[in-house]
Amino acid sequence: MSALLSIEEARARILDPLKPTPAETVALACAFGRVTAAPIAARRTQPPCDVSAMDGYALAAAEGAAGARLRLIGSAPAGHPFAGKLGPGEAIRIFTGSVMPEGADAILLQEDAREEDGAVIVGESVAAGRHIRRAGQDFREGEVLIPSGRRLSARDIGLAAAADHPWITVHRAPRVALLATGDEIALPGEKLPPGGIVSSNAHALAALALAAGAEPTVLPVAPDDIAAIADAAEATRGMDILITTGGASVGEHDLVRAGLSRRGFALDFWKIAMRPGKPLMAGRVGGVPVLGLPGNPVSAMVCAMLFLLPALARLSGLADAALPTEEARLGTGVPANDGRADHLRARLSRDPEGRLVATPFPRQDSSLMRLLAEADALILRPPHAPARAGGEIVPVIRLDALGV
Amino acid sequence: MSALLSIEEARARILDPLKPTPAETVALACAFGRVTAAPIAARRTQPPCDVSAMDGYALAAAEGAAGARLRLIGSAPAGHPFAGKLGPGEAIRIFTGSVMPEGADAILLQEDAREEDGAVIVGESVAAGRHIRRAGQDFREGEVLIPSGRRLSARDIGLAAAADHPWITVHRAPRVALLATGDEIALPGEKLPPGGIVSSNAHALAALALAAGAEPTVLPVAPDDIAAIADAAEATRGMDILITTGGASVGEHDLVRAGLSRRGFALDFWKIAMRPGKPLMAGRVGGVPVLGLPGNPVSAMVCAMLFLLPALARLSGLADAALPTEEARLGTGVPANDGRADHLRARLSRDPEGRLVATPFPRQDSSLMRLLAEADALILRPPHAPARAGGEIVPVIRLDALGV
Repeated sequence: MSALLSIEEARARILDPLKPTPAETVALACAFGRVTAAPIAARRTQPPCDVSAMDGYALAAAEGAAGARLRLIGSAPAGHPFAGKLGPGEAIRIFTGSVMPEGADAILLQEDAREEDGAVIVGESVAAGRHIRRAGQDFREGEVLIPSGRRLSARDIGLAAAADHPWITVHRAPRVALLATGDEIALPGEKLPPGGIVSSNAHALAALALAAGAEPTVLPVAPDDIAAIADAAEATRGMDILITTGGASVGEHDLVRAGLSRRGFALDFWKIAMRPGKPLMAGRVGGVPVLGLPGNPVSAMVCAMLFLLPALARLSGLADAALPTEEARLGTGVPANDGRADHLRARLSRDPEGRLVATPFPRQDSSLMRLLAEADALILRPPHAPARAGGEIVPVIRLDALGV
Repeated sequence: MSALLSIEEARARILDPLKPTPAETVALACAFGRVTAAPIAARRTQPPCDVSAMDGYALAAAEGAAGARLRLIGSAPAGHPFAGKLGPGEAIRIFTGSVMPEGADAILLQEDAREEDGAVIVGESVAAGRHIRRAGQDFREGEVLIPSGRRLSARDIGLAAAADHPWITVHRAPRVALLATGDEIALPGEKLPPGGIVSSNAHALAALALAAGAEPTVLPVAPDDIAAIADAAEATRGMDILITTGGASVGEHDLVRAGLSRRGFALDFWKIAMRPGKPLMAGRVGGVPVLGLPGNPVSAMVCAMLFLLPALARLSGLADAALPTEEARLGTGVPANDGRADHLRARLSRDPEGRLVATPFPRQDSSLMRLLAEADALILRPPHAPARAGGEIVPVIRLDALGV
C-alpha cells in the first residue's frame, strides 16, 4: 500500500490549482453573503456636512450661556435643512441628523431647554462643537470601505448602501456539480434495489455547498457503468468543480477511472491519514477540477468539511481558505491516537466558568450518520497525538460556525 | 420622561405575542436551513441488514483460522448482494457496505488475505462479528431522528435523506416587510435631496432577515406623510412582521402613529435602557406585529440583533430564541457603565494560549457605520457594570456566528 498522505498535503494539492471565479455585477439587494471581487469605495462623504447628533436647538456657542433667551426663527427636521442663516440672538429647532445651519456651532439639548413665546431659554450652558457630527466623521468620498475578497455581511450591505452603491462587483457563486455513483443507491422516496441504500451524500453536500455560498447542481445518480460515468462527466460543462462520492475505494477505482478518462480525466487516487475517511480522488476532467469523496456518508461529510469547504472558499474569492478552529476543554479523556488524524464527533457545552467543553460521543463508528447530525463539533486529534485527560485543551471545529 | 425599559423586558414584550408560522411541505433539496414543524422519523432501518464494514472476504468464523483455505464462490459488490448461501469451506469476496451472505458471520480483511487459484488463504484468524455493521446500528424504522423545531443542517439533510424522506414539513419562512420612512432618504444610486442621506437600513435589515432564514420584502420608502405611511401599512397584508426604521424619535411619533392608526394600529413607544439605540416602537397593525427600530443605522442594526433576530427565531419555529453569547477576555480596559446597557463594537483575536480576546474600538459613536461593519463582536456591558481591566472576562456576541 502506498504511504498515507497528510490532510495538510492533500489540502494543499487540492487548493493549489484552484482560481477564484470571475466577477459579476449583482444588485446590492442580492449581494448578501457574496464575496467582493473589487474594493468598495465611498461615493460620498458621510455625514456629507456637519449635522446635529441630538434633538435640541442649534445656536452660536457664544450666545448659549445658562439663562440666555434666543429667538426661534425656524426648524430643521431631518431632510429639511434650514435655508437661512442664524443672526445674533437667534436659534432654530433641530433634530438628530439634521444639517447644522450657517451661524450655529453648538447644540442645546432639548432636555436642557425650555420653549416660551417663540423663544428658547437655555437651561445648561452649551459647548462649541459638542453634539455635532463632523462632515466625513464616518467616511469620506473615495475611501475604501470594504476590501476585495470579503464575504459581505448584513452590516457591509448597509455600509455599501450608505456609500451609495446600488450595484456590487462580486465573484460568481462557484457552481458545484455533485455526482453520486453506485448501483446500490436510490433517491429518497424511490424504490430501493435489494441491498440498496438511499442516496444521502449528494443532497447533504448540496446543502453544504449552499452554506458555503456556492450553487449546487445534483447530477442524476450514475450506475456502476463506464458509459454512464462518462456521460455524467460531460455534465461538468460550465461547472467550477465536480464532486463525486463513492468510487474511490478498492475495486471501484477502475470503473470511475475508465468512465472519466473518456473525457480526458487526469486523476490521482490518494489514501489520506485521517479518520473517518481515507480514500480520496483529485484531478481534472476537461479542465474542471474534480474532487472524489468517499461513499460512506459520515466520511464524505467530514472530508467535505476538510477539503471541499476550503476549495469553495478559494473558488469564491475568499483570501483565507482555512477552517476556523477553536479551543475547548475535553469533557472526558481520550486515548492516544494512531497514525491517522481523527475527527471525534462531540457535543459542546459550557463549564461553570463559561468555558467551552467538548465531550466526544462514546461511539465513533463512521457508519453512524445520526451521531454526526447530533454533533456540535469535531474534536481534532492529530496523528500520534498522546492521550488527553478530561479538562485538557484540544482544538475543535464548531459545526454550527461552518453552517453545516 | 418615562422610565427606561430594560432590554430583557422589551424583548419579552416583543416575543410574547409571536407565534411560529404555519407548516408547509418542501422538497428535501429545499429544506436546508429551514426549521422542522414535525419530527422526522426513520422510514427504514439503517443498515437494513448486517453488512460488511470493510473490504475483504465473508466467511464462517469457525473456518477462519490462520492458514485456512476457502473456496471463493462469488462476490458481493455494493448493491449486488450474493444470492446464494455459504456452504462448508466457502467464502465470498465482499466490500464495505455489502450485505453479509447467509452462512457468514465473520470478515477476513483483504490485507490479511491472499487469493490463489479461486481460493482465499487466511493470513490472520478472524473473529465472529468483527468488522460487521449490525442491522439498525445507525437507526431503526420509526425512531425519531430529528426533533420538531430544529433548523436543518447539511448533516440533517443527509440524515433525512438516508431515512428516506423526499419531503420535509417545515415552518414557512417568516415574511418580513421592511419600511424605511423619512423625507431625507433616497435609495442607493438615486438623486439625494438637500441634506439627505442614502437609505441603508432597509437593505441591511433585509440581509439580516435572510441570514435568519426569513423572506424580506423591502417596501418603497415612505415620505413623512400620513397618507403615505398609511398606504405602506396596507402592505403588511400576508406578512408575518412589519419592521419600520425611523419615526420612533421625538417629533416623529405623531406622524407614524397617525399614519399607522388609520389601519388600526395599537402602538407602544418605548425608551430602552441601551446604547446604541434607545427609542423603539412595538405593536400590531391589522393583526400583524410591528417592530419600530431607530433610524440611526448603527442603532437600527444593534436593535435588530437584540430584538428582531429573537423575534424571527420565534416566528421561524425555533424553540430557543436566545442570542448566543460567549465569554472573551478584554483586550483593553473599559470604564464603568452608566444606566444604559452598552454594546461595544470590538475586534476579536486570540491570545498566545488560544483564548478569545475582544478589544473595543476606541471610538464608539453610534454614527460610525464603518466601525460596526469592521467589528467582529459586540461586548455586552450591562447597566451600571463596574470598570473592567484588560484581561478580565466579559460576555460578547460574535457577529459572524449570527451571520450578520
